[in-house]
Amino acid sequence: MYYVDKRLQFPVKVETPDPFFARQLQQAIGGIEGEIRVCMQYFFQAWGSRGTTTKYRDMLLHTATEELGHIEMLATAVALNLEGAPATAQETAAKDSVVGTIMGGGNARATMEGMLQRHILSTGMAAFPANAEGVPFDMSHIYASGNLAADMYCNVAAESTGRVLAVRLYNAAHDQGMKDMLSFMIARDTMHQQQWLAVIEELGGEKATLPIPNSFDQSLENTEYSYKFFGSAADGTPPEAGRWTHGKSIDGNGTFSVFQNRPLGEEPSLGPAPPQSGAEKQQIA
Amino acid sequence: MYYVDKRLQFPVKVETPDPFFARQLQQAIGGIEGEIRVCMQYFFQAWGSRGTTTKYRDMLLHTATEELGHIEMLATAVALNLEGAPATAQETAAKDSVVGTIMGGGNARATMEGMLQRHILSTGMAAFPANAEGVPFDMSHIYASGNLAADMYCNVAAESTGRVLAVRLYNAAHDQGMKDMLSFMIARDTMHQQQWLAVIEELGGEKATLPIPNSFDQSLENTEYSYKFFGSAADGTPPEAGRWTHGKSIDGNGTFSVFQNRPLGEEPSLGPAPPQSGAEKQQIA
Amino acid sequence: MYYVDKRLQFPVKVETPDPFFARQLQQAIGGIEGEIRVCMQYFFQAWGSRGTTTKYRDMLLHTATEELGHIEMLATAVALNLEGAPATAQETAAKDSVVGTIMGGGNARATMEGMLQRHILSTGMAAFPANAEGVPFDMSHIYASGNLAADMYCNVAAESTGRVLAVRLYNAAHDQGMKDMLSFMIARDTMHQQQWLAVIEELGGEKATLPIPNSFDQSLENTEYSYKFFGSAADGTPPEAGRWTHGKSIDGNGTFSVFQNRPLGEEPSLGPAPPQSGAEKQQIA
Amino acid sequence: MYYVDKRLQFPVKVETPDPFFARQLQQAIGGIEGEIRVCMQYFFQAWGSRGTTTKYRDMLLHTATEELGHIEMLATAVALNLEGAPATAQETAAKDSVVGTIMGGGNARATMEGMLQRHILSTGMAAFPANAEGVPFDMSHIYASGNLAADMYCNVAAESTGRVLAVRLYNAAHDQGMKDMLSFMIARDTMHQQQWLAVIEELGGEKATLPIPNSFDQSLENTEYSYKFFGSAADGTPPEAGRWTHGKSIDGNGTFSVFQNRPLGEEPSLGPAPPQSGAEKQQIA
Amino acid sequence: MYYVDKRLQFPVKVETPDPFFARQLQQAIGGIEGEIRVCMQYFFQAWGSRGTTTKYRDMLLHTATEELGHIEMLATAVALNLEGAPATAQETAAKDSVVGTIMGGGNARATMEGMLQRHILSTGMAAFPANAEGVPFDMSHIYASGNLAADMYCNVAAESTGRVLAVRLYNAAHDQGMKDMLSFMIARDTMHQQQWLAVIEELGGEKATLPIPNSFDQSLENTEYSYKFFGSAADGTPPEAGRWTHGKSIDGNGTFSVFQNRPLGEEPSLGPAPPQSGAEKQQIA
Amino acid sequence: MYYVDKRLQFPVKVETPDPFFARQLQQAIGGIEGEIRVCMQYFFQAWGSRGTTTKYRDMLLHTATEELGHIEMLATAVALNLEGAPATAQETAAKDSVVGTIMGGGNARATMEGMLQRHILSTGMAAFPANAEGVPFDMSHIYASGNLAADMYCNVAAESTGRVLAVRLYNAAHDQGMKDMLSFMIARDTMHQQQWLAVIEELGGEKATLPIPNSFDQSLENTEYSYKFFGSAADGTPPEAGRWTHGKSIDGNGTFSVFQNRPLGEEPSLGPAPPQSGAEKQQIA
Repeated sequence: MYYVDKRLQFPVKVETPDPFFARQLQQAIGGIEGEIRVCMQYFFQAWGSRGTTTKYRDMLLHTATEELGHIEMLATAVALNLEGAPATAQETAAKDSVVGTIMGGGNARATMEGMLQRHILSTGMAAFPANAEGVPFDMSHIYASGNLAADMYCNVAAESTGRVLAVRLYNAAHDQGMKDMLSFMIARDTMHQQQWLAVIEELGGEKATLPIPNSFDQSLENTEYSYKFFGSAADGTPPEAGRWTHGKSIDGNGTFSVFQNRPLGEEPSLGPAPPQSGAEKQQIA
Repeated sequence: MYYVDKRLQFPVKVETPDPFFARQLQQAIGGIEGEIRVCMQYFFQAWGSRGTTTKYRDMLLHTATEELGHIEMLATAVALNLEGAPATAQETAAKDSVVGTIMGGGNARATMEGMLQRHILSTGMAAFPANAEGVPFDMSHIYASGNLAADMYCNVAAESTGRVLAVRLYNAAHDQGMKDMLSFMIARDTMHQQQWLAVIEELGGEKATLPIPNSFDQSLENTEYSYKFFGSAADGTPPEAGRWTHGKSIDGNGTFSVFQNRPLGEEPSLGPAPPQSGAEKQQIA
Repeated sequence: MYYVDKRLQFPVKVETPDPFFARQLQQAIGGIEGEIRVCMQYFFQAWGSRGTTTKYRDMLLHTATEELGHIEMLATAVALNLEGAPATAQETAAKDSVVGTIMGGGNARATMEGMLQRHILSTGMAAFPANAEGVPFDMSHIYASGNLAADMYCNVAAESTGRVLAVRLYNAAHDQGMKDMLSFMIARDTMHQQQWLAVIEELGGEKATLPIPNSFDQSLENTEYSYKFFGSAADGTPPEAGRWTHGKSIDGNGTFSVFQNRPLGEEPSLGPAPPQSGAEKQQIA
Repeated sequence: MYYVDKRLQFPVKVETPDPFFARQLQQAIGGIEGEIRVCMQYFFQAWGSRGTTTKYRDMLLHTATEELGHIEMLATAVALNLEGAPATAQETAAKDSVVGTIMGGGNARATMEGMLQRHILSTGMAAFPANAEGVPFDMSHIYASGNLAADMYCNVAAESTGRVLAVRLYNAAHDQGMKDMLSFMIARDTMHQQQWLAVIEELGGEKATLPIPNSFDQSLENTEYSYKFFGSAADGTPPEAGRWTHGKSIDGNGTFSVFQNRPLGEEPSLGPAPPQSGAEKQQIA
Repeated sequence: MYYVDKRLQFPVKVETPDPFFARQLQQAIGGIEGEIRVCMQYFFQAWGSRGTTTKYRDMLLHTATEELGHIEMLATAVALNLEGAPATAQETAAKDSVVGTIMGGGNARATMEGMLQRHILSTGMAAFPANAEGVPFDMSHIYASGNLAADMYCNVAAESTGRVLAVRLYNAAHDQGMKDMLSFMIARDTMHQQQWLAVIEELGGEKATLPIPNSFDQSLENTEYSYKFFGSAADGTPPEAGRWTHGKSIDGNGTFSVFQNRPLGEEPSLGPAPPQSGAEKQQIA
Repeated sequence: MYYVDKRLQFPVKVETPDPFFARQLQQAIGGIEGEIRVCMQYFFQAWGSRGTTTKYRDMLLHTATEELGHIEMLATAVALNLEGAPATAQETAAKDSVVGTIMGGGNARATMEGMLQRHILSTGMAAFPANAEGVPFDMSHIYASGNLAADMYCNVAAESTGRVLAVRLYNAAHDQGMKDMLSFMIARDTMHQQQWLAVIEELGGEKATLPIPNSFDQSLENTEYSYKFFGSAADGTPPEAGRWTHGKSIDGNGTFSVFQNRPLGEEPSLGPAPPQSGAEKQQIA
């Protein structure tokens, strides 16, 4: 179960509110690279954690709980960036010169309304769980497979796209408070990338965890094709060489080579449509 | 651009059609762990590939093209597993004893209709781009961030959950043709896990690629918190120890330690609602 | 604006309630082939109708209004098919023999709960705007392009898949009341297919309406490729011959021929990633 | 910010695991009536709370934090109900007699696989953030309007549908541990219905809060139509009488009466399509 | 069944078309606070209405039918606000000075295209069933639970967020025709808020209808926790006092008090992963 | 199975990158009128093709494969139109005069960021599988019904809205390279409209294929209503006359006439709610 402290994990200060930046921050809340995703992903991985030790459940719960505080920080940042944004046509006109200066040019009404649609119309100047374009976050992005190593790579993927996004937001920011907040979040993303990879290392590294799932008897797979890079060029041009075309495989179980892709099967035949299946007569034998 | 050979990449044979298994195979077509996802993910990563070499675009295109053939194999397998499935109430009754035997018990009408809803009602006994529960695949799952290392980890994640799914389907299969097809696909997933990790290795491994993005000057992040594992226990119980709580960080840039999470910020104050923002009077100063 | 008569457009009678069939009927309510789709599609086409005559707006409004009554009929049919379905575990056990008979076999609890999830849990034994698998209808399926001929073909498509679905439901039905209701709906789908094609005919037929939009000066398109069927076989095997490979084109403006697809462009080059775009260093020149 | 205690808010015990019930519990996790919804709804309302007092933010944070623990309880209950469920075809056959008994009839393979699809294929026998039919939760259901009274009614709506669902699950349950857990949750839903209505009362009740938003000068609305119940019967039959057709309005500002709906406007005319708008020539003047 | 009158329920006039405002009006069509939602919600509640009287079905049908006319009014308003909007780059340039004046500043191309994407690209200058940011309306927002009181609160919630939106649009409008239309709609939302609450009153008010569902024997719930406000502060700080922390409960069945949340359950243990469940070996006992 | 040639099907050149146009092109990639849709639709129709000839599978595979190359062209065009777009606030300021010129006015920061959100934040200046407003493509738009004629009309619908979109993009374009690319694509859409209609003609034309499905014995439908245009005017005003109100039906099987819609059924009665269904007591008999 969970507890709250009404203070924020890290200071969120906005000296010069910027409704555009509020909009961009939404991506870090409700985007697929954002904080709702990692928070809920770690919680569901923790709540479904099966294994011979409690340590991964423990680890996941700590970090999921931390991430909840990050959503809160970002939601606060959005609201603060919307302070003083015009709510009506009249206000917009009145603020045009002021806002125009913040925005970097004239035409405040058009651009602000463009950016603010949902913040004006739907939330009363507050954050909402959608991305920078208003697409609501969809929980199918919570990856929790029941396989610990697969989940750790899903988490590395999430924190990698997350830190890329945070860096882009940092580059887009021009308020010192926002840069400070993002600087903290980028640091936390650094740690989170590390910690999921540390689990892989603790489990014995790539050799011990791959191929995922390692509980499947690899002799049951068609091993002739397990370490071949398939080239699919129509004219048979071989693929450009890389670490993946030669040398020992990463899991140590095989050797990479190149295979020119070609049909190993036949043209399939599905047969005619059944008489009562709603097909056209011409499809029925 | 692209070409087709009407033969399949690998043989797809079904001796004993099994509409249940058709249903389960849908997860490998239109599930988030499935083949549409990896096919389109690699294509979009290839088409947007920016860098100083063409080799990653090349690699991605070869594998994306291969994956298109995998969707085709699975779609064929679904259609073949639906051969002879009853299309009408009358047919169901007639086939009850036969089908019941395949299904492992009586009550064929109920279970078959339950499993077959969309295959009966919407496709005329063919595959469709949705998962085992009929939820259509949603292209927001195509992860292509513009950062090569992040994308590679997204691909490892996709192939890890993908191979986990293929193994579960192999375990669920009881037709030799289906086991053969899945055995091939599991082998290909093995290779695909390897090849994306091989890119990381070629780029210099974890030390050279982390933290992602490595193009951000790490001195700009709040480095005090870059390698601390935050414990969030309400009573201050420290997290269970693991590779992530002590020792050199994975990227070699720091040392892991534990930090008991506590508020570094204050309780936020958003101020009252603006007069014309649609709030209740009681919220307006 | 609109009016209601509380009576149904056509009788909806259910002698032997069948919760399975209730489930299947959901596809005709909230499936992409269903009645919400055509109802809302015709309304939005009508409400946005632009042209030199009011007759198409008139036609669309009449039929959209009719379709609203079809949703109502189907929703009523779903509710009637759920009459007497067990709401609790105790009831299920008690009804097992009775329900088992209706269902066609034993094991009533399992199959009923499987089929009824949302009807038990979410609606209190009533219809809801989702398909047979509980996927909610999504309004992106309302096709209304602003081009009259395009919209008419969208409508033919909708009524064609709609009548295919209705026929499949008719084949699955075993209650005379349900067969009667569907027999009426199939007849209406017949008419609706006809009427949208009648608009094409009235506009001058395929020659006068194609290519859609016919308001674009066809000399601006790359006419070298306007009537060529592209063959994409990797080994250059020509496509199988059909009406589309030779002879006068349907719009009368050209002659069909076959063209073996090949690259007319070059390999694209996107250049390196910009320094502050969040890419890996290795991608930046 | 937030803290975790690894113990559960309330005991979650399952004596007889029931994969069907696991499936049904998913509705309380990822359904629109479920706990993710209320948890995130209260958090976003809290994080965006604007007003002249901190007490509503305080109240919302406490309850949102409580709800997070409810998702955890339900996720645990799902996982425990899946204990011992067969993961493979072989296991299913072996367990048929045992499982059949739990399930209430024969045919275990068909029904279990039908119910378990995603629990077998995607999660390794754990909960996931989707409803009983596998439709992922979509964050557009987080209602947080910026208007305190509107939000309170949204919360009453959520807790009302939530308690209705919990009662239906209680009725469907047959394991004492599950009944105990649901009995606790139903009690909490009782309180949560109360507390949001208590806010309305504290704000002055319906007279002081309605119409929502009460900050809009009601003289600007077309008051001729503010308290009229519109009858839309085609033949002019008046609506059936009720509290809403006569007597003082609930907000005390008017008197209810009946108005037979009729067009107050004209048939709209949108004019022809612009020449370059992609319409058919026949639509362009 | 239903009928149409081609005239509008209320006049829709636009003197100065404003493509921005067209965009904003989309929220009232396809937003979750919009008219498609209430229209379809009331229809589905009516079509599934079960009870001992027909009056609620009657009431719901009248208002659902009215709402259909509101969608029509808004769709017409969108189309009229798009009259004369530029369809091409050339037109935009030509209209820059004129449009710029309407828009309140220069740079018409950028802002118009930003606002108009789908109105230019997808609809030929007409409304579509999506919100102000182009997110299509999703029918999972049709709340119809089968419980009359729950549904009434869902309707109050919908009309409350709906009137908040209408007021925000009124504040954003600057065309008298649009203000008149919205003034009418705001009045109707006033009535609709009232009428659903009037049903609660007619059913006996909060005491007779709460807790919802009132058909569940309250002695079966864990009444120790039915009227306690749970405080979740990590340091045990009690919640701020309010109507919900003391005094008689709203339903009259209990007394509010405060309870400091703490774990009543234990740390859950899910046990190891089954051997064939696709987990890593390290998770399998 | 499939092969790749790294060259493009047709040249994609951009002389003057235009981030706005990149945004608009997204509609042709991930919009419902776009290329992912037709590509995947034709593939799924091919993969599920049942009938007495292989020629339709052959035809569909050729064109699906061609369409994959179109997505590639458009993705390349998006990336090229984003070349040189500013990634950061600093860059934007620096480029204001240059970009402003391209954009057609001042205020570059506001408008560019508005247009570029996801291209800046999520993709590193590359295309993604969503429409012009960032709504991800959803595979429920892949229409593949198992009925050949229905599918052909679905394809005509897709290519009609597709060519309408391409024409609108052509009108919006101002770069010669983009106009050339679109000119080619418009030509291909012309052919694709033709070829699906050619299938209808080959199958015997409208008379032989209608009503769809033609395999349903038309004597089983309620033929009294098969060719009647239903007028739904409340006051009985007959519909405006058209080809659909009189004369021989398109399928040659009947004669069109007008029927004034009226209730043929009765007011439905669903009966009271079951005692344990979670309804209010007042709904239970």
